[in-house]
Formats: sequence, structure tokens, C-alpha cells
Amino acid sequence: MPHEAVPFDPAALTFNDAGLIPAIAQDITSGEVLMMAWMNHDSIARTLDSGRVTYWSRSRQAFWVKGETSGHIQELVSLRVDCDRDCLLLQVRQTGPACHTGRRTCFYTAVENGGEVELMQPE
Amino acid sequence: MPHEAVPFDPAALTFNDAGLIPAIAQDITSGEVLMMAWMNHDSIARTLDSGRVTYWSRSRQAFWVKGETSGHIQELVSLRVDCDRDCLLLQVRQTGPACHTGRRTCFYTAVENGGEVELMQPE
Repeated sequence: MPHEAVPFDPAALTFNDAGLIPAIAQDITSGEVLMMAWMNHDSIARTLDSGRVTYWSRSRQAFWVKGETSGHIQELVSLRVDCDRDCLLLQVRQTGPACHTGRRTCFYTAVENGGEVELMQPE
Repeated sequence: MPHEAVPFDPAALTFNDAGLIPAIAQDITSGEVLMMAWMNHDSIARTLDSGRVTYWSRSRQAFWVKGETSGHIQELVSLRVDCDRDCLLLQVRQTGPACHTGRRTCFYTAVENGGEVELMQPE
């Protein structure tokens, strides 16, 4: 059935003991990996319904609509599920920097020859 | 000190209660996100020492040298740490498919209009 889609049910994903699943955000334009955060069942549903990426904040124990205060929103372009159904890939249109430090991506530190090198500055 | 590297110490990362940290593998050539798996302190050290990506298998509770049996190895090109020091990005040169199903990436299922769509076949 190559063209017949199976209905997507967030409840059929594999969540960890805290009811969370890791979600990787990737910039749809540059291909850059921007960040990794966590989602629960309801934040996945909200993300799909609104088209606005909504994580679950483990520190605040609350929905985290990315960019709600900063304006650095993530518009969902494509949501993908991995083979084990225990990780999500979000391809997004990112407004402004993704990182709370003001850098384009959270992965701005490289390990080179045993040392940490900062690859970019805040924008 | 823009050009002075801070020494990298895997022990200074933030691991979860099981001593693990998520690691995202990205194809250095295509930019494609290939998979997400877990590392512990020693698998990070082994990866850096050998240049061969080595995860920690949660199911087997053992080192998992990616591609050791399949030949589908991941050669580390760049290891990056995120702002919270609780997630790694591995930019890799991937030999063969990354996914155990034989597909190029583990993220071969897209959610579109409420249904799951398989984006690619095993190679």
C-alpha cells in the first residue's frame, strides 16, 4: 500500500518514564540542526494543530510555545518519526536565532583537538 | 579569548539519571539527520579517540560501535555540544544506510494530514 497513509496517533509513540519524547529541530532552509527539546503527547498534538512548534518544558513543567516571548518562533514544515518511534524530527522555518543565547543554533560549540571551540557569536 | 580553546571534559556534560546523553547523528555531506542514540561518558571518549562513532546500547547495556557488524560505520567529522551541555550533535561520514531497516535515515516516516507516509524504501 505505497500510497495509503496509516493514521498518525501520538499515543502510539514510545515516551520515556516521564511521558516525554526527544524532538530535534532542523532548519528546513539551511539543514542546520538547531536544538533538541522534549515533547509530550499533548505538545505534539498542539504542534500539529497550530503549526507552531510547542515543546514541553521540563524545568517549568508547562507547555513551551517556542518563541512565544522572544518572537523566535518555529513554524512546523514537516514532522518525522524515527524507526523506533521514540524520537521526532521537526523540520522548521525558524524566525531569528533558535538558541536562548542569541546564536543561530544551540550547537555552537565544537570539540576540536581536545578543546572546546565556539563556532559563532550571538546575532 | 576568542581563539583560546577550553579543554573538553566529557565528565562536565549533563547526563541523565542513567548516565546517558542523547546524540544526534547528521550526515556531513547531505545535512540529513540520520538517527538519534545515546552515549555515556566512556562511549564519548571512545568516539573521540577512535574517530568511529560509538554509542551506548540501552537494550544490550554495552558499547555499540555503529556498523561493527553491518559495516555501516559512522566516521566522526565533528562533535558539537549544545548550550545546555545535555545533548550532542555528531557530524559524520556515513557508510551505507544509517537505519537498521536499511533506509538512509531512521526518520523515514513523515506525518502529513494526520497520516503516516513512508518517504523512502530500504536501499
